[in-house]
Amino acid sequence: MPGSTIGKIFQVTTWGESHGKAVGVVIDGCPPRIPLDEDRIQAMLNRRRPGASIASTQRKEKDIAVIYSGVFEGLTTGTPILIMVENKDAKSNAYKPYANVYRPGHGDFTYESKYGIRDWRGGGRASARETVGRVTAGAVATTLLDRFGVTVRAYTIELGGIRAERRNLEEMDQNAFLCPDQKAAEAMMSRIADIKKQGDSAGGVVEILASGVPKGLGDPVFDKLDADLAKALMSIGAVKGVEIGAGFKACQMLGSENNDAITPGGFASNNAGGILAGISNGENIIMRAGVKPIPSISIEQQTIDKEYRRKTVSIKGRHDVSAIPRINAVCEAMASIVLADHLLRQQVLDIV
Amino acid sequence: MPGSTIGKIFQVTTWGESHGKAVGVVIDGCPPRIPLDEDRIQAMLNRRRPGASIASTQRKEKDIAVIYSGVFEGLTTGTPILIMVENKDAKSNAYKPYANVYRPGHGDFTYESKYGIRDWRGGGRASARETVGRVTAGAVATTLLDRFGVTVRAYTIELGGIRAERRNLEEMDQNAFLCPDQKAAEAMMSRIADIKKQGDSAGGVVEILASGVPKGLGDPVFDKLDADLAKALMSIGAVKGVEIGAGFKACQMLGSENNDAITPGGFASNNAGGILAGISNGENIIMRAGVKPIPSISIEQQTIDKEYRRKTVSIKGRHDVSAIPRINAVCEAMASIVLADHLLRQQVLDIV
Amino acid sequence: MPGSTIGKIFQVTTWGESHGKAVGVVIDGCPPRIPLDEDRIQAMLNRRRPGASIASTQRKEKDIAVIYSGVFEGLTTGTPILIMVENKDAKSNAYKPYANVYRPGHGDFTYESKYGIRDWRGGGRASARETVGRVTAGAVATTLLDRFGVTVRAYTIELGGIRAERRNLEEMDQNAFLCPDQKAAEAMMSRIADIKKQGDSAGGVVEILASGVPKGLGDPVFDKLDADLAKALMSIGAVKGVEIGAGFKACQMLGSENNDAITPGGFASNNAGGILAGISNGENIIMRAGVKPIPSISIEQQTIDKEYRRKTVSIKGRHDVSAIPRINAVCEAMASIVLADHLLRQQVLDIV
Amino acid sequence: MPGSTIGKIFQVTTWGESHGKAVGVVIDGCPPRIPLDEDRIQAMLNRRRPGASIASTQRKEKDIAVIYSGVFEGLTTGTPILIMVENKDAKSNAYKPYANVYRPGHGDFTYESKYGIRDWRGGGRASARETVGRVTAGAVATTLLDRFGVTVRAYTIELGGIRAERRNLEEMDQNAFLCPDQKAAEAMMSRIADIKKQGDSAGGVVEILASGVPKGLGDPVFDKLDADLAKALMSIGAVKGVEIGAGFKACQMLGSENNDAITPGGFASNNAGGILAGISNGENIIMRAGVKPIPSISIEQQTIDKEYRRKTVSIKGRHDVSAIPRINAVCEAMASIVLADHLLRQQVLDIV
Repeated sequence: MPGSTIGKIFQVTTWGESHGKAVGVVIDGCPPRIPLDEDRIQAMLNRRRPGASIASTQRKEKDIAVIYSGVFEGLTTGTPILIMVENKDAKSNAYKPYANVYRPGHGDFTYESKYGIRDWRGGGRASARETVGRVTAGAVATTLLDRFGVTVRAYTIELGGIRAERRNLEEMDQNAFLCPDQKAAEAMMSRIADIKKQGDSAGGVVEILASGVPKGLGDPVFDKLDADLAKALMSIGAVKGVEIGAGFKACQMLGSENNDAITPGGFASNNAGGILAGISNGENIIMRAGVKPIPSISIEQQTIDKEYRRKTVSIKGRHDVSAIPRINAVCEAMASIVLADHLLRQQVLDIV
Repeated sequence: MPGSTIGKIFQVTTWGESHGKAVGVVIDGCPPRIPLDEDRIQAMLNRRRPGASIASTQRKEKDIAVIYSGVFEGLTTGTPILIMVENKDAKSNAYKPYANVYRPGHGDFTYESKYGIRDWRGGGRASARETVGRVTAGAVATTLLDRFGVTVRAYTIELGGIRAERRNLEEMDQNAFLCPDQKAAEAMMSRIADIKKQGDSAGGVVEILASGVPKGLGDPVFDKLDADLAKALMSIGAVKGVEIGAGFKACQMLGSENNDAITPGGFASNNAGGILAGISNGENIIMRAGVKPIPSISIEQQTIDKEYRRKTVSIKGRHDVSAIPRINAVCEAMASIVLADHLLRQQVLDIV
Repeated sequence: MPGSTIGKIFQVTTWGESHGKAVGVVIDGCPPRIPLDEDRIQAMLNRRRPGASIASTQRKEKDIAVIYSGVFEGLTTGTPILIMVENKDAKSNAYKPYANVYRPGHGDFTYESKYGIRDWRGGGRASARETVGRVTAGAVATTLLDRFGVTVRAYTIELGGIRAERRNLEEMDQNAFLCPDQKAAEAMMSRIADIKKQGDSAGGVVEILASGVPKGLGDPVFDKLDADLAKALMSIGAVKGVEIGAGFKACQMLGSENNDAITPGGFASNNAGGILAGISNGENIIMRAGVKPIPSISIEQQTIDKEYRRKTVSIKGRHDVSAIPRINAVCEAMASIVLADHLLRQQVLDIV
Repeated sequence: MPGSTIGKIFQVTTWGESHGKAVGVVIDGCPPRIPLDEDRIQAMLNRRRPGASIASTQRKEKDIAVIYSGVFEGLTTGTPILIMVENKDAKSNAYKPYANVYRPGHGDFTYESKYGIRDWRGGGRASARETVGRVTAGAVATTLLDRFGVTVRAYTIELGGIRAERRNLEEMDQNAFLCPDQKAAEAMMSRIADIKKQGDSAGGVVEILASGVPKGLGDPVFDKLDADLAKALMSIGAVKGVEIGAGFKACQMLGSENNDAITPGGFASNNAGGILAGISNGENIIMRAGVKPIPSISIEQQTIDKEYRRKTVSIKGRHDVSAIPRINAVCEAMASIVLADHLLRQQVLDIV
């Protein structure tokens, strides 16, 4: 079954394997006459590039986004937009040992189980490299969000067990982890350095804030805005949990604590995270994605090979210590794609 | 935009408002020749009935599920199955005060914002009564799951701030909260009684366990099994967070702790919650849904009316103190629908 | 696989079997605040009623359309609209002889082949009675078309081999065949009477004219307006051919004859039938649906039973001599549904 | 709205403009482990190449199909297959005169009306060059059809008003028009030569025959096999009419003539064209697509420019005299895509 498409109006289909010829995306349903140039896409793409923090691999990918269709004289034409990034610097031989051995925590075993075949080079389709397509589509989505005055930011609120105490978004650009609490970021830095030394890896939590979202987005009862956001975030490889607003904290509150009072000027609090009954309420939309530790570690692990024989693996080579902060751009892209889609969906309601 | 349909092959569309003529569901794509009778549907439906625990309203709904199409001589025919439950015992006048006043925590404000109109009687489309359609569809889904040896159970692991310490599923039938820890259930009972006395409400956490799920379900990269489950659960009105496996706990682990070692007999642990890279790995699938407190409370709250004038509301009448345990059947239904859909999707892969 | 849904925004799902409890439709995606009452739906439904012409069965169906959801105080609410028509006057015993024998020209054999089960009572799901759902949805669609100034008319241009020479739409209400050429209608009348006497049946051609359609509808390259109209018309049981504009006649023209010259005031001719490159051009949209003769005839026919033994059948009872003119309302409904859907789709383009 | 995707399981999305960087397709949902190489795709692609008959332009496109993803070691992996063909030999300057003038019979006016922008170079997205993506996807589809023993052939039965009297498929390779009546082909040859000399163009009719199709394909009531085939064929630029089986001829028959008697060995005739009630009946599936004359002619035509001023155009340059026979491969591809999709859809029914 096809599963590589998301969105009903702003329809995004990613394609490509880690060490194939290229990775990319087709976006169908982008409205016409939107200025779109490769620089903007490139800028967002650069944010998921490795090498920016000590948590990330030193693999140098000169990822260049090229638009192949759907844009004419700098404007979208309303036809499918194909964007491609060629795969270079791919060292497939490094993955040869895992052609027949399943790396724990990876999709090796499940892809093989499902398809009976898998491109083991660099993780194939299950590689985080697939997110290149997501991020480029997210960049296109943000050009739409601009028109509606919507902005989306993703930042790190937890890494390696260290939690940010504050959300000063200006501080997030002062550290490599995109953490809005510079002090916490420093603790993260030292924690990550330790974990790296041990050959281990770390997880964390990314918060995504969408501001300027108009009231009324979301299509109950299944395509609710929070449901679509949850799916979009959970579809990112490393994400194991998603929260909206107060999230799991709300479960421990009383109704009188959790309910956001309504005033003529808006909501008095935002436990709802900007979404009530699946529809945006005009407040900031706040979500969190729980990111598991990178499964590739050099510490020895127990596993099996394709013949179900016991094996041990110790994964050497260029791997991130944490998916954070590179995954932040992916979270931001996914939220942007969902919001762009729902902003467009909303247009059809205004016919009366 | 339509948003009341979920599933690609086992396609479920709910319809109906709380105090309209009826609520129900159309299921299109159910394979033919599956035995289906109203008793089974009724049995699952009864589980979301009020009155079973002190957390629930005493509103007596004699919900009778009637199959209108798609079944012939006790077998599904492969054509759309319409199931309807008439609305009775609906006292719309009790909602008259909220025709022009937005109840905090409810969808009143957002439905009005989105559609410019809303059926305020009993919460209209945003009422939990819509889940009647979900649960009946879930019952149909379980008839499919049976054929594949899959079972789904939903149980309460937290309520009113009290956490279950164990998962003894046999104990869950010993208490009204469907809690697999009888001792915790007793504490929950007394906690809920307190909260009820205060006119307040409580939230909690439901865990859903799917066992017998074969390897290979899930369609990367967007229709991953965990992504679809997250959407399905988050689409339930009261749910504000979703976790798979270790969930947010995984974010604080090291890779060496979180990775599940693989042995010839299966996975040595199940932090992944049965899903790797969006595809089931043959282990139990474990999810958790964070449920917010019921927004309807008799404690006075600040709000506004349609003219944006300040108002206070104190919601009297028949309301649950917590969506738990009635919501458990809904969680179970949604997980069952997603799994049935993916089990069917999987059939198309086996052509070689 | 589900197949009972059409439309991307104005999403129509029919359900129900000929002799089941009821037939009907769920419409999801209808914009809110549209006045909708049962009288309007009933009026369109009455047009597919039998008994209006000698070509139709005398089976008296008091089809009463009842709205079950999605409408509040006479206005649509933006939520799914369920409309149901109960099945009465259904004499299932008359179909008993065909429970195990396949009627030629009917879906008996193919439904059995596909599903391994079929509701043989009254043709089950394959009955023309399923079109009750289509026509009621079509009535809802026309309320949308009204807002855009679009009108759709279906009329008979051929019946029993007799072709209308003119398109005087005022004449179509002067005869029971909805033929815009009263003289041809009279010849049709006598032809149909002959065929009826012989126990045989007749086919014909319905033309559908949509006027007031704005420029720009249609989503290339697959969801072109003509492609969607072709699918919608071909999905009607008796239809075996579909043409747009000059249709098959265009194939015999030269380019210089077929091309419609463009003038400042519009197109100088309309061989294109109002659609160029899959997009409406502002002219009238003209389509034709070729309708095969009713397969139920009292003349003896060769067939087989479920055990593949030779049988003969002679179908007695209440059957139309021709699907025309009752099918005209169905053609009109299907075209209306497609146009309503595309009018709504078009709204998302106008964001710049 | 997106409109460039067709198929529910075998999901085909074309992208690209005539004179952009490239044209191509993404296929999502192709089952894994199917041998797929570029040679096979190239072979089918070559059949839509110009230059094979005097009806076609002499523009030399060295169209080379390159697979970018979804294939590993010669086998499909179950992940999206991207196939790209670079645009070379594109002389955009030849189209400069039509940047602001609408060519009659083309999509210039409607694309401009819909999108407010259009890539006028070579017809942009509305160019027949888009069908490169269709044909490559069709080639992939045929690899699936092979596994089910299904073959699809498209041949010319009418061209420039000359009708083939016979269907001797062996003769179709003896002439450049793919006509199964060599004598008719010779008349077509001379007719086309005449028309070419006049600077005019011709239309015709393509018949498509699918043999080996198993019983049971098609999803009533909207996704019927004939409905999906009609949509797929009508979505081809030049097609203005579609017939199944006896098609419009059936409309003039009596029921007793048109009904296909059923015998233990199959159907005694095939007026139904292999489809009853929207489901394949095991006989050959026969469809016809009516193809309008190429709109580009050197004869002077009346039109307007973007400012709605009267203009005349006389289109010089490299243009086909008829879309036939190049369009035949496109018809074949579209039918193959629909059949592959329905063959896969059918797998989900066999769970009992």
